[in-house]
Formats: sequence, structure tokens, C-alpha cells
Amino acid sequence: MKNIIVGQSGGPTAVINSSLAGVFAAARDKKIQNIYGMVNGIDGLLKGNFIDLKDYLKTKEDIALLKRTPSAILGSCRFKLPDMEKGRETYEKLFQILNELEIGYFIYIGGNDSMDTILKLSRYAESIGSNIRFIGVPKTIDNDLAETDHTPGYGSAAKYVAASLKEIIRDSNVYDMKSVTVVEIMGRNAGWLTAAAGLAKDEDCPGPDLIYLPERTFEQEEFLKDVDHLLKEKNTVVVAVSESLKDKNGVYLCDAMIKNAKEDSFGHKILSGTALAVSELVTTKLNVKSRGIIFNTLQRCATHLASLTDSNEAFLAGEEAVKAAVSGETGKMVILRRMKENTYIMVPELFAIEKVANEEKTVPDEYINSSGNGVTEAFLEYARPLIQGELNPIMENGLPKHFVIKKS
Amino acid sequence: MKNIIVGQSGGPTAVINSSLAGVFAAARDKKIQNIYGMVNGIDGLLKGNFIDLKDYLKTKEDIALLKRTPSAILGSCRFKLPDMEKGRETYEKLFQILNELEIGYFIYIGGNDSMDTILKLSRYAESIGSNIRFIGVPKTIDNDLAETDHTPGYGSAAKYVAASLKEIIRDSNVYDMKSVTVVEIMGRNAGWLTAAAGLAKDEDCPGPDLIYLPERTFEQEEFLKDVDHLLKEKNTVVVAVSESLKDKNGVYLCDAMIKNAKEDSFGHKILSGTALAVSELVTTKLNVKSRGIIFNTLQRCATHLASLTDSNEAFLAGEEAVKAAVSGETGKMVILRRMKENTYIMVPELFAIEKVANEEKTVPDEYINSSGNGVTEAFLEYARPLIQGELNPIMENGLPKHFVIKKS
Repeated sequence: MKNIIVGQSGGPTAVINSSLAGVFAAARDKKIQNIYGMVNGIDGLLKGNFIDLKDYLKTKEDIALLKRTPSAILGSCRFKLPDMEKGRETYEKLFQILNELEIGYFIYIGGNDSMDTILKLSRYAESIGSNIRFIGVPKTIDNDLAETDHTPGYGSAAKYVAASLKEIIRDSNVYDMKSVTVVEIMGRNAGWLTAAAGLAKDEDCPGPDLIYLPERTFEQEEFLKDVDHLLKEKNTVVVAVSESLKDKNGVYLCDAMIKNAKEDSFGHKILSGTALAVSELVTTKLNVKSRGIIFNTLQRCATHLASLTDSNEAFLAGEEAVKAAVSGETGKMVILRRMKENTYIMVPELFAIEKVANEEKTVPDEYINSSGNGVTEAFLEYARPLIQGELNPIMENGLPKHFVIKKS
Repeated sequence: MKNIIVGQSGGPTAVINSSLAGVFAAARDKKIQNIYGMVNGIDGLLKGNFIDLKDYLKTKEDIALLKRTPSAILGSCRFKLPDMEKGRETYEKLFQILNELEIGYFIYIGGNDSMDTILKLSRYAESIGSNIRFIGVPKTIDNDLAETDHTPGYGSAAKYVAASLKEIIRDSNVYDMKSVTVVEIMGRNAGWLTAAAGLAKDEDCPGPDLIYLPERTFEQEEFLKDVDHLLKEKNTVVVAVSESLKDKNGVYLCDAMIKNAKEDSFGHKILSGTALAVSELVTTKLNVKSRGIIFNTLQRCATHLASLTDSNEAFLAGEEAVKAAVSGETGKMVILRRMKENTYIMVPELFAIEKVANEEKTVPDEYINSSGNGVTEAFLEYARPLIQGELNPIMENGLPKHFVIKKS
């Protein structure tokens, strides 16, 4: 039987290592001899960087710890594979490495850009008559992958956002004075994670007062009117904003803060500072104390607060990818399909990758309220099951313990 | 027997409600009839805002939930009591309220400014021959109160800082590229909480590479040299900076970011933005990708990650304050004294408040390394016991549940 290789790509999530654990477990079950891990994804593989995971994952405890470790344990990359016509050498080099390692199955855990990689590699394999199978495992806190009900990584990020907001709302209300707290949440062009701020609302928490998703233009005058109105009723207003909000001219709000917004290697702008811009707006226009809070990378790496549902599904998606590859599938991504409306049952399926790669799924209209400053009950019903359960950390010396790659 | 009244003051901590729970438990044990809570501290009390805690805290579950609730459940204030000579009316009004409520014991949970309140009130009481007892319960994430080994609230904030840093360090290392991550930690003039960043170092984590406390001048050239040197050895450099770092001219680094730094009612500057200033410095001078992360209020309100040791000590300090007041003490603050070097045994004692009020305890030289860019093993030995154990949250609907003040 052929060997398997797995890579992690793009921005990390709290449970991207659970998917790796799922891949490893299924490959071991299938009695695959060598289970390789690319170090820093396809970029590292091209440089000859890989390990044999069996040298590092030996015990049940290793797997338990791996699931509880944030960030991609194998390292990640943002490597855009060239088009087949332009970059033939890259493909040839890669397939040479794969053939030398006798790889039969190639699993890539990542977001839309990584699925683009799977699409290109499976097409190239087809064009040269290679039998290597390429399967994608979805991963992104942004939840913007098409066709799947949701994406592993989103649930844990949503849980972190909602739990932290509950704490911040409490903190913001501590003084008997007027104040506006603006919290910035990640999500490139899609507002799924910002929408999760609405999950903070419960019997013990009013939730954020206003939620602004990038699916709607940020209307400055409307916003100021809303805040002003709320401040007449209550002391503290808490606002959740997406990092990628744009004004009516299509300009990112954070561009007012960062003069020369940087770009990553996919040409995506690196966004941060929207909360500071909105907070400054409140202070200037309404003359009220305001604070901008940016969750930053913690929302994608706070594995100590990971959702057990999310971790289990990430594991399942990893397992499913291996089963699919071994059964002969290629050019597919694992998706999660919700079986029923009322009972939460999630079933993994396969989906043709060309319908997923490079697509961005944004938040649909029925999940955004009519004023464009909040989410609907339908969204909360969609999202609530995803944050259930806890993957309690293993504590050592008072802190969550993480897995370390070292040969024993 | 006389009644008791308790207030919470200043910036909240993750365990300020544990101290309130301790006051309540001890007062109930002492069979005190009415256990009043000031709403928004002494500021609220002067406006006649108080509640009877027995109306709200009825069951063991209420107490368990109260301990797990962030921010001051009674609300807080930043109210500076005028000097006795200048503000006699304020004192007269306050004592009139206290006498109407038949208060015998006045407990105030807070930091150095709140201890100033206890000092002034106990002196005024003495001057008018009042028998009301005034006792302070220490509270601050800054750990800058004199005489006590440490301050309740610090251990949980330290645990949050160290745990989050472990996650951020993992995340920062995910790509195979040079980058510098600068994390900003709270602490007005004292670097105790920033020093706690050093606790992140363990077998599974290298810890932050550089730690800068406000006890040392931030030497820009030395810093850049250190970062440059580190980047030759490794990809990712993680720097922990105090929010209140100053340059060699004594100017706050964050003042470069916020043109008109605001002040609170005690005249303390509101500091935030140091990480952004330092990150900008790295990008500009070393031409390397850099990210500034500000923990902001989460470090004082992340009760979901509270230290059990800290919560228990906060409770104990609250109990001790009541016992002291009932036994006739006044004008004192509860302190924690460490009994042994090797075994961690903490005993509450009383200390004359005039030696504590308005004092700021900074980090001593033996806890800072000779280069001024890290902490010593002696500091880690001091701080490690304070973050041990977990006050696990009570989860509901996938999120930590909090106590709500509502009459049942």
C-alpha cells in the first residue's frame, strides 16, 4: 500500500490539530505504512521538509495533547501554487518528491486558498496519469467555505468570541458612567465570526448592542444615531465590528488607521484597526468615553476554550478525508451536512473541489436583521450547536499543556 | 449587633467577586442581620444606592456562580474622597447614611486609591468618636499594593497573561517567515503583570523572548539590537511590553500613538497603544513584519481562566476583613504573608492602612535581569504558586455562566 502525506495550510485555528489527529488515526487504522507530515505545508515540502508522524505520535496521550494544542503543529504556509501552464517546474518537482516518498494519498487541511491547491494538484495528476489522490479538509475560523454547513475551526472561534464578549460586557458595565466599547472580530469579507458575537446574549448577559458585518456597508450616520439613542437608555453600549467593514465609498474603515495597509502573498489586505477607527469616531462625534478592543490572533488560537463539537468534527473531517482517498476519491473536499433542523446531526460528505475552491461564502440576508446592525434568531439557531461542549485543557504548572514535536 | 456594608472599587479583577463572597460568608457566619452592598462603591452609596445582599445570595449555587462571575457584581467607582478639611459635607452625608443603616462594619475591596478611602474614613470616624470599623480588602491585577506578598486578582490576571502568551507564541510561529509579535500588558507604573509573561516558559514553550517592565527605561537602540540579534537565530520573536513603558525622556511610548492621552478622575493617564508603537518601530527600523496585540480588559475579566489559588485567597481576604472588623479593628488592610520559602503557605494578617494607602510597590531589582529585558528565576519562583489550580467555569449553552443580581 502507498504512503500518505498531510499538510496544514493558511491561518491556524484552535482545532486544526484535531483534523491532523483524525488524519493520523484513520491512516493508522488503514494500516498505511508511512504517515508523513509536510513541515510548513506545500511550501516546506517543496524544500524537502517533512516528518514521519509515527515518530512523534506514539501514545493516546500524544493524540489527546495534540488535539489541545493551538496553531498548526506542522507549521503552515501561504503558498499560492502557480497555474499549471506557467509553473510546470513546480508541479514536476512536487510530484517527484511525492513519487520518491511513494505517496498514494495527499491530504491538505486548509481554507479556500488551500482548496485551490488541491484542485490544481488533482488536475495536474489527472493530466499526467498519476494515481495520487488529493483530498481537502476544510479549516477556517472565517466559515466562508462554500457548500459545507460550516467549517471546522469556526465553532471554537465563535465560542471564544462569545465567551470573551460576555466577560467584556460585564467589565464595561462596572462604572456608573457613559461609555462605548467597540470590539473588533476577524473575518475577511465574511461576517460569520462577527455574527457569533450575538451568541453572548443569554439570560445572564444582554449581548452586544450592535453588530456590524462586512456584508452591509457601514453607514456612519446611522451608527452614530443608534449609539446616541442607546446611550439615552443605558450607560454602556457594546458594539461588535468586523475587521473588514467598509464605508459607503468601499474603503476599509481600518485604512483610516493604517495608512499603507499591507498585503499577504495572496493579495489579501491585512486588516486591523477597525475598532480603533470606530471608537475614535464615537469619541469625536458623540463626546463619550470609548475603548477599542481587538481580539487579534487569540480568536484563532485560544484552544483552552475550544468547542468539543468543533474539535470532534475537525477530527471526523480528517478521518473522512483518509477514507475517501483510500477508496479512490480525488479532487474532493470533505463537507459537513446538517441532517435535521431540530436535532443537531452532522454527517461528513464529499464535494467536488472546483465548486469550493476560491469561493467565499458570505452571511446570507436571513441571518442579518433588517437594520443591518444585528443578527437574527435564525442565525443564532444555526450557530449555537457549534459552540457546545468543552475540550478541557490538560493543565500543567497552572497552564494549558501543549504538544511538542520531539522524537522520543 | 450592628449591620455591615461592603463595596467594590477601582478597576475590576477576575476574582473581586470571590472577595465579596468571602465577606458575605463571614458576615452570615457572624450572624450579622443586614449585609448591605454599595452599588458603584462609595460614589453610589452617597447617592443612596445600596442593596441587601441576603435578598440575592440565597443558595450555595449563588455563591459558586458569584465566584465565577467577572467584573464587580456591585459595580465600581473611581471616586476620590476629598480631604477631611475641604469636604466635611461629604463625610457628614456619608456617616449619616451609615448611621441610618445602623452600620457597624464598613468593608471596601479595592486598590491603593480605595485604601486611601479607608484611611480617610477611619480617621474621620476617630475624629467624631464614631465606632464604625473600616477595613480594606486588597484587590488589583497590578499587584502594586505595599506590604502584602501579593494582591488578590493578580494571580488570575497572571494566569491569563501566561496562558494566552503560550497560545500566541504558538500562533506566531506558524509560518516559516521572520516576524515580531509585540504583546501589551497592563500595569500602571508597576511591571508585575508584564513580568508574568515569563511564566509562559516551560518544556512546551520557549516563552517570550524579551520582556520590558516600566521599572526600566525603554532603550530603543538596545531593543532593536536585541531583536535584530534574535532574528538571526530564529524566525519569530515575541516581545512582552508593559503599557506604561517610558523612553529615556520620561515620555510614555503610547503617547506617540495617542496624541491627547486621557486621564481618569484620579489623574492617572489611560495608557494603551505601547504595543502598536513598539511594533511600528520594529517594522520601520528593521523592515520585518510585526504585529501588536493588546490584551486590554480581558486580562482583568477573564474569569473563565481564573486561578483557584487566587480565588481562594480573595475569598479568604474577604472573610478575614469581616472577622477583623467584628473583633474591633479599624483603619487596617488585610495582607497576605508567605510563611515559607519552599512550601506555599499564605496567611492573612492585618496591616495599618496608612502604610499602604497611596503607595505603589514596584518590581524589585532582583526580579529583573541585568539587561533589563527579562525576568529572573527568583521572580518565577515568587509568581508560579499564584497561578495554580482552576476555578472551572459553570457552562451553560456552551458558555461560562455568570451570576445576575435579581430578586428571586
